[in-house]
Amino acid sequence: MTRKDWKWNGWGTEGVRYDLGSHREAFLQWLGSRLEMDAPGTRWPSVALGDILLPETRIDGGGLQDLGAALTTGGSVTTDPEDRIRHAMGRSLVDLFRYRLGRLPGSPDAVVHVTSREEVAAVGRVCAARGLALVPFGGGSSVVGGVEAVDPRNRPIVTMNLRGWSGIQDLREEDGYAVVAAGTLGPDLETALNARGWSLGHFPQSFEFSTVGGWVASRSSGQQSNQYGDIADMVAGCRLWTPAGDWQTWEGPVSGAGPDLREVVAGSEGTLGVLTDVTLQVHRLPKTFRIQAVLFPSFVEGTGALKAIVEAGLRLSFLRLSDGEETAFYLKIGHPNRWKDLGMAVLGRLGFGPDRSVMLLGTEGDPEEVDRATAEALRIAKRHGGLSLGQGPASGWHRDRFRHPYLRDDLLDHGIAIETHETAVPWSRVDPVRQSVRQAVAETLARQGRRAIVMAHLSHSYPAGTCIYFIVIYPVDREDPVAQWRPLKAAIADAAARHGGTISHHHGVGLDHRPWWVQETGPVGLRLIQGMKAALDPDHLCNPGKLMPLPEG
Amino acid sequence: MTRKDWKWNGWGTEGVRYDLGSHREAFLQWLGSRLEMDAPGTRWPSVALGDILLPETRIDGGGLQDLGAALTTGGSVTTDPEDRIRHAMGRSLVDLFRYRLGRLPGSPDAVVHVTSREEVAAVGRVCAARGLALVPFGGGSSVVGGVEAVDPRNRPIVTMNLRGWSGIQDLREEDGYAVVAAGTLGPDLETALNARGWSLGHFPQSFEFSTVGGWVASRSSGQQSNQYGDIADMVAGCRLWTPAGDWQTWEGPVSGAGPDLREVVAGSEGTLGVLTDVTLQVHRLPKTFRIQAVLFPSFVEGTGALKAIVEAGLRLSFLRLSDGEETAFYLKIGHPNRWKDLGMAVLGRLGFGPDRSVMLLGTEGDPEEVDRATAEALRIAKRHGGLSLGQGPASGWHRDRFRHPYLRDDLLDHGIAIETHETAVPWSRVDPVRQSVRQAVAETLARQGRRAIVMAHLSHSYPAGTCIYFIVIYPVDREDPVAQWRPLKAAIADAAARHGGTISHHHGVGLDHRPWWVQETGPVGLRLIQGMKAALDPDHLCNPGKLMPLPEG
Repeated sequence: MTRKDWKWNGWGTEGVRYDLGSHREAFLQWLGSRLEMDAPGTRWPSVALGDILLPETRIDGGGLQDLGAALTTGGSVTTDPEDRIRHAMGRSLVDLFRYRLGRLPGSPDAVVHVTSREEVAAVGRVCAARGLALVPFGGGSSVVGGVEAVDPRNRPIVTMNLRGWSGIQDLREEDGYAVVAAGTLGPDLETALNARGWSLGHFPQSFEFSTVGGWVASRSSGQQSNQYGDIADMVAGCRLWTPAGDWQTWEGPVSGAGPDLREVVAGSEGTLGVLTDVTLQVHRLPKTFRIQAVLFPSFVEGTGALKAIVEAGLRLSFLRLSDGEETAFYLKIGHPNRWKDLGMAVLGRLGFGPDRSVMLLGTEGDPEEVDRATAEALRIAKRHGGLSLGQGPASGWHRDRFRHPYLRDDLLDHGIAIETHETAVPWSRVDPVRQSVRQAVAETLARQGRRAIVMAHLSHSYPAGTCIYFIVIYPVDREDPVAQWRPLKAAIADAAARHGGTISHHHGVGLDHRPWWVQETGPVGLRLIQGMKAALDPDHLCNPGKLMPLPEG
Repeated sequence: MTRKDWKWNGWGTEGVRYDLGSHREAFLQWLGSRLEMDAPGTRWPSVALGDILLPETRIDGGGLQDLGAALTTGGSVTTDPEDRIRHAMGRSLVDLFRYRLGRLPGSPDAVVHVTSREEVAAVGRVCAARGLALVPFGGGSSVVGGVEAVDPRNRPIVTMNLRGWSGIQDLREEDGYAVVAAGTLGPDLETALNARGWSLGHFPQSFEFSTVGGWVASRSSGQQSNQYGDIADMVAGCRLWTPAGDWQTWEGPVSGAGPDLREVVAGSEGTLGVLTDVTLQVHRLPKTFRIQAVLFPSFVEGTGALKAIVEAGLRLSFLRLSDGEETAFYLKIGHPNRWKDLGMAVLGRLGFGPDRSVMLLGTEGDPEEVDRATAEALRIAKRHGGLSLGQGPASGWHRDRFRHPYLRDDLLDHGIAIETHETAVPWSRVDPVRQSVRQAVAETLARQGRRAIVMAHLSHSYPAGTCIYFIVIYPVDREDPVAQWRPLKAAIADAAARHGGTISHHHGVGLDHRPWWVQETGPVGLRLIQGMKAALDPDHLCNPGKLMPLPEG
């Protein structure tokens, strides 16, 4: 199930790009001047896949034979270099740098493509018996080093691609439960559910290139979380293979019997074993979806409106507030239009100046519910100074929502990097975190004599707080982009943590976020998790080094 | 902080009872005849507190001195027999039997009343250093053996009463976060919050006699969970003393960084350490509360309506559906009224026969929101055959909602037991579990030549399923009520588990539910939890034997 139509060294499907249209050059010029770059047009090419040399596999013939023998339902094992390269990393900015330069941090010694939960268990047992590290791999879209083929203990690595174990295994309509194979990709799940009148309603930006198992393992969150919750809220039960045996958690709504172990599986990032099946709470496909844009004079006013809308408990599926910088960026990236310029000039005179911030509100359900919730949200927005822009600007964003990540590769071709970082905080910390991250980025790049654009939006909100998502655009140091990135990442993460932000609201921990996760978890929490790990996977075979550091020795 | 105004051997405050009024005798007669009892009027007295003999404390002078020295902020340590008796157990039916007979399963060797988180930690360290078992104790309202002063390893026991560590430590109004001392009782918390315009909205039936720490440790759920969630949903952060050190979890809304350890602390039942502070998400005190009753021709139709109301995502705070047996019981327990009889006769002819089931719907918020949500819920109810009964019958139930548990002691005086058991299931299992539990009770008591009344209600509902709460009324075997109860409990729990029900939706596990919890958690889940325990409390000092069995040896 290697997808040769997926880019080996970038985001998404071959041939697809974010369409900048006829104003492409003008946009790049604008970006270059904002970043004070000398030559934004110069190409920064990638090495060719065939030019990457891999070390020999460290798994001997007997090992490969055992792995092959474990594959009794149609799976396959391969040491093909292309397959090993495609499974070496995820799709973080650093991963794109390293692919582009042909400098892999490691690679699997074999890739196993499984097609059933029985094959997952059988392959797992071979790995355990032979001391092979086992890295579960869904869509490979991790942006935190969550699927990187490295083992701190330097054992041979088997990467297990689960996409051949796909599909709805059972749909219990009376309960609204779908039992789904862990390797099911987002579109395959939604298409199959939609055909029967159901929907999960989980749309992370990686939707097209991520799997159900990956969503749960990394505690993913989708664009419609306001109505349907984050993935952990949708899990009614799960089934795993672990080195300590097969495990089916309790399946149902809320239980008061002991700690909620489904909340432990969610976020375990493959370190406790391999998820094979997830029972998801699904809902009837909504009849209507509407998205609406509202402009606020400032980000602070927009944040106040967002909080009030969430507190009112309105049935909105989607809520997003861009800050002034991001609002301006979206205006710039859209097709130029002199009416737009004129409109903005008029808005400026009405008090909607450079900090004007756009909010997108999505509502779905029966038409009358949609009308009512939208009207009520707009009423609250108005009380906070919001001006309704109607559906036009919002529907453009919504149409392109899975295209945005493609821009990253396009700009990288010109030596411009897009880094993303997100956190969650109580409401009172939104402003301190945002200011502090902006400053940290500016200072870090100033030390290199470079400039950056830092924009932010609030993408998932709760009564208890919100997620702040940062997008940082900066000129790449083509000599050593990884060394350039590292202090930038650290400065951003430190700034967010200093004000109480978690290291991740929905990207996960992986390798990249580990030091900050250790810090926010505290020594007792870390000990607790290491206790779980020791109980199920004492040899650290499962996704070694991800989430938690390995103990010394 | 021993509350001498609380009953030592029963539920609640001295002198308070459930008011059966002038039809008391008639009601008891009716109950006696339903249960085919010979002499329901005969008194079954309790032993006197002073007649209970306790063994000498096993903590020597040095130990008591160390405990005393740990109490630096006003706490106290005592071996007073009354205090030891009052802290020997919780308030389950079996606890009431054992208090009444003066047959305690054990008692603390000392009771420590702490007044600060520093005292919690200092006492904890003395227990760890001296190998004393440590049982955290809030209101003592556990109905599952969660605070029982027993240690499977037979070490001396210190019970730590936390009620002297009480009050709101910090109220962060911008975030709606209240940092609350673990020993704060429900009414003290709500009164303090209400005075500042806030509310938590957590009203378990034990509200008056349970603490914030106890709520979180046992994964409690309140009557208004539909709007504000279960206690685990309200926890933004918590702080514990553990034998491995002090621990502050991350504090904020949702995090995607690793397993959610707040969901592990919730439900840990004191086995990982002692909760000292909880950061709770609170909300503005609602302006209006309204409660409404709707009658359905059958429990199945009522269940359909309940599911549809939950799926519609209406902002209702409270939803409860009684089955036919419970609806009839509440009619019987209310004051007799010939209009009521006439009304019921008329309803019978309209198709509301013996299975007629009453639903209570509570709504709170701004008056117009309350109006709208109530109207919408009534519209859905009507589509499912519901008939609105207005606010009258519902407000009576709501007024008495914290009084119902008092009836248990009153009936016990007459040799009639009220046992409760609750579970949660996906919607499709409601009927199988209810039928199966009814049958299990009838068969178990038939073997003794006795009859029972089994009634049920659905008290907490989610898109993924609902909580079924059973109330079983039966004639006590006064010779050995505990031996009589045990097979009954087992039969009920087995029947619920057979159809996928959890052993508890909100009462917890303690000692009584342990075998079923072990079964539903599975060997891998159990190993995981024992791994956590081994990491934080390898000597099983903290609430030993609760939740999880001790390993052999």
